[in-house]
Amino acid sequence: MTEMRRRSARSGGRAARVALRNAPLAENLRPVRAGLEGGQYKPLTDVQVQRLHGAALDALEQIGLSQAPASGIEIMTQAGAVLGDDGRIRFPRALVEDMLAKAARDITLCGRDPKHDLHLSGNKVHFGTAGAAVHVVDLETNTYRDSTTQDLHNAAKLTQALDNVHFFQRAMVCRDIADNLEMDLNTIYAACAGTTKHIGTSFSEPAHVAPGIALLHKIAGGEDAWRARPFVSNSNCFVVPPMKFAEESCQAMEACIHAGMPVLLLSAGQAGATAPAPIALAIVQAVAECLAGVVYVNALASGHPAVFGTWPFVSDLRTGAMSGGSAEQALLTSGCAQMHKFYGLPGGAAAGISDSKLPDMQAGWEQGITNVLAGLSGLNMVYEAAGMHASLLGFCLESLVLGDDILGQVLRCVRGIDVTEDNTSIEAMKAVCLGGPGHYLGSEQTLQLMQTEYIYPALGNRMSPKEWNEADRPMLIDQAIKRKNEILAKAQIQISPELDAAIRKDYNIYFH
Amino acid sequence: MTEMRRRSARSGGRAARVALRNAPLAENLRPVRAGLEGGQYKPLTDVQVQRLHGAALDALEQIGLSQAPASGIEIMTQAGAVLGDDGRIRFPRALVEDMLAKAARDITLCGRDPKHDLHLSGNKVHFGTAGAAVHVVDLETNTYRDSTTQDLHNAAKLTQALDNVHFFQRAMVCRDIADNLEMDLNTIYAACAGTTKHIGTSFSEPAHVAPGIALLHKIAGGEDAWRARPFVSNSNCFVVPPMKFAEESCQAMEACIHAGMPVLLLSAGQAGATAPAPIALAIVQAVAECLAGVVYVNALASGHPAVFGTWPFVSDLRTGAMSGGSAEQALLTSGCAQMHKFYGLPGGAAAGISDSKLPDMQAGWEQGITNVLAGLSGLNMVYEAAGMHASLLGFCLESLVLGDDILGQVLRCVRGIDVTEDNTSIEAMKAVCLGGPGHYLGSEQTLQLMQTEYIYPALGNRMSPKEWNEADRPMLIDQAIKRKNEILAKAQIQISPELDAAIRKDYNIYFH
Repeated sequence: MTEMRRRSARSGGRAARVALRNAPLAENLRPVRAGLEGGQYKPLTDVQVQRLHGAALDALEQIGLSQAPASGIEIMTQAGAVLGDDGRIRFPRALVEDMLAKAARDITLCGRDPKHDLHLSGNKVHFGTAGAAVHVVDLETNTYRDSTTQDLHNAAKLTQALDNVHFFQRAMVCRDIADNLEMDLNTIYAACAGTTKHIGTSFSEPAHVAPGIALLHKIAGGEDAWRARPFVSNSNCFVVPPMKFAEESCQAMEACIHAGMPVLLLSAGQAGATAPAPIALAIVQAVAECLAGVVYVNALASGHPAVFGTWPFVSDLRTGAMSGGSAEQALLTSGCAQMHKFYGLPGGAAAGISDSKLPDMQAGWEQGITNVLAGLSGLNMVYEAAGMHASLLGFCLESLVLGDDILGQVLRCVRGIDVTEDNTSIEAMKAVCLGGPGHYLGSEQTLQLMQTEYIYPALGNRMSPKEWNEADRPMLIDQAIKRKNEILAKAQIQISPELDAAIRKDYNIYFH
Repeated sequence: MTEMRRRSARSGGRAARVALRNAPLAENLRPVRAGLEGGQYKPLTDVQVQRLHGAALDALEQIGLSQAPASGIEIMTQAGAVLGDDGRIRFPRALVEDMLAKAARDITLCGRDPKHDLHLSGNKVHFGTAGAAVHVVDLETNTYRDSTTQDLHNAAKLTQALDNVHFFQRAMVCRDIADNLEMDLNTIYAACAGTTKHIGTSFSEPAHVAPGIALLHKIAGGEDAWRARPFVSNSNCFVVPPMKFAEESCQAMEACIHAGMPVLLLSAGQAGATAPAPIALAIVQAVAECLAGVVYVNALASGHPAVFGTWPFVSDLRTGAMSGGSAEQALLTSGCAQMHKFYGLPGGAAAGISDSKLPDMQAGWEQGITNVLAGLSGLNMVYEAAGMHASLLGFCLESLVLGDDILGQVLRCVRGIDVTEDNTSIEAMKAVCLGGPGHYLGSEQTLQLMQTEYIYPALGNRMSPKEWNEADRPMLIDQAIKRKNEILAKAQIQISPELDAAIRKDYNIYFH
């Protein structure tokens, strides 16, 4: 590589650049990667963050949460929460603060391949899929159809090939499976067979956790191996906003924690519907609910890995319908990210959702704006970051592929402006301006930086109108369909043939 | 309005929301407007800003700029700049600091209608068009054709109707006009006849300034009226990066200043080609060049209104071609905005450019990401913010209309999260959770905020898949074409019939 770079620099100009760009780039030289540090964008001042925190504590103390399961009531009241005559559990400030002190920080969400491990600390940013879409967007016909297990598996395979999608949380419901247990097991296996990146799933019933974990033990090679590196986390909608526990999801969460599975404490209110309309107060409610979750988890198992999942969504208040692609969504999500930093807890929220039904210009601006604000706010886990349409109702495989391009640009923004001695020395300007060529093309510095400082889109088109015409005016969607098909044609199953055969023998598997 | 709101709140639910959204919103209640304050995003630390400033001063002192016109050499050397034997003008630090102290701050760029005045101070953000596209993108055929005076006039008319496009700088070259003076005059008149918002033009030759100003006096109603409220500024590419003055453009700039016209000091280097490849050093060069411009302008006319126009662009280093839609572009532009704040000068840069040839998903993410970062960085003037394709070679009228939606979302992000007593009080949560309806739909607070806290897209589609199907799956581009045609069909000429007739008698006007 060094030899090659030296030769290229000598030959200069376009040929050198072409040679250089064809050379593979070492992982550590790539312009972007998982875990880049955000935090350059702060929608809230420190004083405002304190104020929202104070309001959340007030809400926990004065309003509390209703409808905890019996097991949860016992766990939380033993820790110091107070069960009122109205059935609501209220949380004294001291209890919340104690539990915050016990909560796990700097957690790692494992990939089945350790190179895909996600280190959730500080402002480190990771993007991935999520959701429970019930449709797949078919771009050949511009129609919506029911999502299937095969679609989910294909999305996992695509994720495996897309550098800027760092984890794969279940994004679609396998609607070709009528039995809910079969669906939960296929969800896990379709994801694991498609990618070695960290996986998120969501059990539909508490009783499904045990068989799900049994399957995961098989995939991991035994319980010890699973517990050493749990590569699947469970997404728990443990609350039904406003300020109510979700009984079954709480029970499932308890089972996951016993099984050593990291959990996502997911509070998904909708501002103006199930959460307050003011963005600030919607954040307060989400934070209060997730703090209740922190108490719950740490009272049950001190320091168990949990992601602080404040996912407030936006209602289009004209209709009450959800809007995931709005500016208000971007503000909610990045405001939440600041609250996560305040607590020093690993946090996640939603961004990258499009309200558009298709991967069109609207989808581009919605996904671009919401993802870049999430990234710049230093959100550790950006869920639903690619492929999501129709305000979460539709998933589009080609859009996932296009989303990888968006996330590349977003990650480049997160990486920010390198200010180093070399990057600010005017010697390079002197060499060019004072007796030099009068331009920077082919200069040593330009060649050095062309792959490490700049990121190039895989599908984004930068041709001139003339080149574009001569290339028969390629359309973005056609290119995305083509790339999706190419990736899927080459994708390998990420499970050994023996294990795959054994699993297909024991389970009714719905994808090939 | 108050009466109506009270009634609506009482009736509750969907009917109330529908009634409310149909009521017109007072200007001061609109969720977004021109001049919202950004600054929540800071790609550079204060120390880094200082470092770039120091490097720019070093470059001015040690490298300087070549090729100033004789008049400029005289103006600048009399002020204290040093002409070297190599023909380069170098600028001692003290001179730059003196001229920075004299430079106009908090300037107003006037609209012909005062309600469109742009107040350039602090982090106030304004979005508008700009550029010199030579093509128009025809979406009926997906082809590029030469841009005409009529296209430019139509773009001005659209801008007049689009709330989130705050100024209209010449975006296209009138390629149907062979004579350059006729072209410059038609450019001015096509813009003025289309919009009463602030206009930017660019004279192609110094000799054209006088006849252009004569036309502007007519439109203004005399020289005094023009000088009292100059509603057109001139975009001066006064440098040819790296570090060279552009002789003719400098002469045109001098003439504009004498005529009382605000100027845009425009430095448009291309990182990796005419500017250094490192983003930080490209900013340094642009800042150095614009500081030279500040010396030039203020030595000629102390305190003359000038916009600090650091417009570094990005090269795709694989090909040397320009890329305006990249993450690196967003970083360059927002880094520059921070430098403007450091100097306390009114500043402008480019964002919102798409490299895509069409208003597709790529265009959406490129325009969305670059515009939102520009806005959040508090850039006073965001040029090329809508309509621009093919890395500035093509302008698309429908994309301008779609851009208004993007800019609405961007402005909503710039406005940020309101944190007030009302917006963080948990009383609203108590009312809903403790014996209340258990949801926030139709609550007093929700109704109050639905139009002041939330912005709704004009073209962005938030239907469910079912509604979308029932509406025959409307395509975004078709809707944009329709809205463009509707606006143009209703648009009025913004010049009195008498004056218009007089001008058409004296000049060869190329649009109707």
